[in-house]
Formats: sequence, structure tokens, C-alpha cells
Amino acid sequence: MNKQNLLYEGKAKRIYRTDEAGLLWVQYKDDATAFNGEKKDVLVGKARLNNEISTLIFETLKEKGISSHFVRRLSDTEQLVQQVEIVPLEVVVRNVVAGSMAKRLGLKEGKSLNQPLVEFYYKDDALGDPLITEDHIALLNAAKTEEVEQLKQMALSVNGELIELFDRIGVRLVDFKLEFGRTDKGTLLLADEISPDTCRLWDKETNERFDKDLFRRNLGNLQKGYQEILSRLTV
Amino acid sequence: MNKQNLLYEGKAKRIYRTDEAGLLWVQYKDDATAFNGEKKDVLVGKARLNNEISTLIFETLKEKGISSHFVRRLSDTEQLVQQVEIVPLEVVVRNVVAGSMAKRLGLKEGKSLNQPLVEFYYKDDALGDPLITEDHIALLNAAKTEEVEQLKQMALSVNGELIELFDRIGVRLVDFKLEFGRTDKGTLLLADEISPDTCRLWDKETNERFDKDLFRRNLGNLQKGYQEILSRLTV
Repeated sequence: MNKQNLLYEGKAKRIYRTDEAGLLWVQYKDDATAFNGEKKDVLVGKARLNNEISTLIFETLKEKGISSHFVRRLSDTEQLVQQVEIVPLEVVVRNVVAGSMAKRLGLKEGKSLNQPLVEFYYKDDALGDPLITEDHIALLNAAKTEEVEQLKQMALSVNGELIELFDRIGVRLVDFKLEFGRTDKGTLLLADEISPDTCRLWDKETNERFDKDLFRRNLGNLQKGYQEILSRLTV
Repeated sequence: MNKQNLLYEGKAKRIYRTDEAGLLWVQYKDDATAFNGEKKDVLVGKARLNNEISTLIFETLKEKGISSHFVRRLSDTEQLVQQVEIVPLEVVVRNVVAGSMAKRLGLKEGKSLNQPLVEFYYKDDALGDPLITEDHIALLNAAKTEEVEQLKQMALSVNGELIELFDRIGVRLVDFKLEFGRTDKGTLLLADEISPDTCRLWDKETNERFDKDLFRRNLGNLQKGYQEILSRLTV
């Protein structure tokens, strides 16, 4: 397996073609960004931490019957994934009020929801990834109506497994963002990454943050928080 | 019927109690505001125009079997309405892309939608009346799930009648905002006003604006536009 030309560079990862059709080479970056790219930094070690954590999580989900684009870990900072056509939606699952939902609805951060809540955001940096409704998704042709239902169900299944996984290591899964892709057969597949960059993870006892809010809100050392998650997951 | 103490003052109307329980006295104001109150002006005559147009529209809807809180016109700028508990949602129906939807989704203003689209905004000035999803409505206890379905159906029925009404006078109904209330029996009832303050109304031939965008975007004389709607409706 060889890395070939760069296909796409995002804020946190570079995606390369490989010499095998249908497989892509993902290289995590140490770049940290927040607020749609307005806040930026390079945090050495973040690439490795996210690659290791995302690898562990995708492997755990696979054992639980939830497949994803993840194929295998290639190095400290790289993994091999199946090529998919990314659905232009950020699927957010929330178990606890935090972040943009607290702000939008005027609710206090930290309030547990009676049931998980799924939101869709339109993946478009120029528009600031706006919250959209299911009618907007149809209007934008971002996904078919039956796909939206599947995305919700898949996101809730992932939520169930992740709540359990993090609960075992004393961490509260506050919320997280998923992305999905379509395989060449048109099947929806979990894609992107699942890491402290894309989840809010709070210590169950102390509410200490182990996620990107450390960087976003200057709450502490990001690498230390991510390392804590990795260490607890690998005990 | 006598006007009693002021119950509530909004951006465009004052609501007074009357000496009859369950009936309120609405006085339209000449104040114009936009962008959540950031832009303000006094436009002499707006109160009368909105009162006359809203009266005509509520009367037309009633003839078509759609009741509302409207009881009767009291004067040039006043009307009598049934007291209801306002549901804290702005129900927006869109037939053509414009305004905040164009901006949110990056779509061109003026594109006709294949089917009308209903959106819910949370009525909260401090939060800037944010777009919310049906799950948010449930979380906020803004309305029951079955009420949300009724609100949608009622809004679409109003849309059908208004499209016809405005089409007859050469006007394209681009979008509009409705508010609803609950009667003391808990029944949902159309409330607030329906006027060029709450609808986007474009001339079918020339696309000339006859609505609050005249003020919002400095497109021309607001009173002249509203008068055009009133004149065409009363021919």
C-alpha cells in the first residue's frame, strides 16, 4: 500500500489517494481550529492522539456491529479508510446541553436531556455550517428523506455504544458530531473521525473537560486532556 | 366595550384589557423595527395600513373556514381580538427563497420552492428568535408534538388561501410569519396579525416589493407599498 497524490486537505486531516482503488490514506494534522477557522494553533501531538483514539473507537464500534470507513491504522498519525462520497451534513447527537445548543436555546450547560437529541448542520464553511431542518435537507438535496431517517438511527446507535464505552472510563459523553459517506453501492457508512476533536467529554466526577473546548475556550492543555482519554481507553 | 389597562406592549402593537373578560383591544403602532430591534423608525400611517390589511385578511380567512383571534375592527388603527395564550413560536411558511433562508442555505432569492416549506423560530428576543427543530420545540416545552403537527397543517391551510388571495391582485406571496395562541379550552387559534409587516409580497410582473423589506433594506417608501396592497385588496 503506497500513499499517492493529495486528494483533499481539511482543517484537521490530509487525505491522499493510494495505489489501491477505493482506499484512502488519512493523515491527521496537529492543527487546531475553532469558530469556523477564526481561532487557530498548532498543538504538537494532537494528530497522534486523535488518530489513536479514533482508531480505538472505530475498532470498538466494529466489534459492536457498527461498521465505518475505517480499515486499519497505518502509523502514529495515519490510518487507511474506505473511499466514500461524504454526505454534506454534520450529524450532532446531544445527551447533555452544551455549546451551540445552550447558546441557541438559552439553556444552562450541563443539563442532561431526557433523551438524546439529533441535529443536522449543513457542511458549508462559507455559510458557517448552519443548523438546518429536515425540509432544508430535502431542498438542498443533501440527503434523501429515507437517508435522513437512517442517519438518525445510525447516529443514535453510535451514541448508545459510545455512552457505554466512555461511561466505563468515568467519562460523560456530552455530545458529538458524526459524518457519513455513501459507498459506491450507495450504502451509508460512518466516516470522518470520532475523537476529542468531535466529542465533548467531561469527567463524570469533576466535570473536567477532556475535549476541544480546552482549546476553544482556553480551559487548559489540550494534549493533556486528549492523553487522559487515550490512557483511560487503553488501560 | 371599553379599553382598560395596558397588558403588553410589543414592537408593533399595544394590547389592552377590555371590560369584557376574554377580549383584548389591539392598537397598532406606527413604529417600524427590523433586525431584532436594531433598526427603528416611526412611519406615520403604518398602524392604519396594517390594521386595515390584517382585518381584511382575517375576515377573508374566516369566510374560508379558518378562524382566528380576530373579532372585529374598532377603528382605523384598532381591532378587538380574543384573548389567547401565545405559543412561543414563529411559524414561517415559504413559497419562494428569500430573506434569512436565502442567507442560511446560500440560495438565490426568488427561486420558487417545489412545495411550501414550514419553519419554526423560537420567540425570544434575547436569543434573536433562533430557528429551531421539532426536537428543540419538545425540549423547550414550547408546544406538544401533536400541536406542532397541527401548527404545520394550519399554517399550510392559511398559505393556500393567502396564495389565492394575493394571486388575484397580482401579488406573489413569497413567505410569511404566523403566530398562534391557545384558547382557554386549549384549542390552537391563529393570532397576531397578517400584514405586509409579516409577509413578503412581490408584484407578480415587476417583482416590486410591497412589504417590510422596503424599510428593512431601504428599498423604497413603506407606506406607499402597504397602501398598494390595501388598494388592490379593496378594489
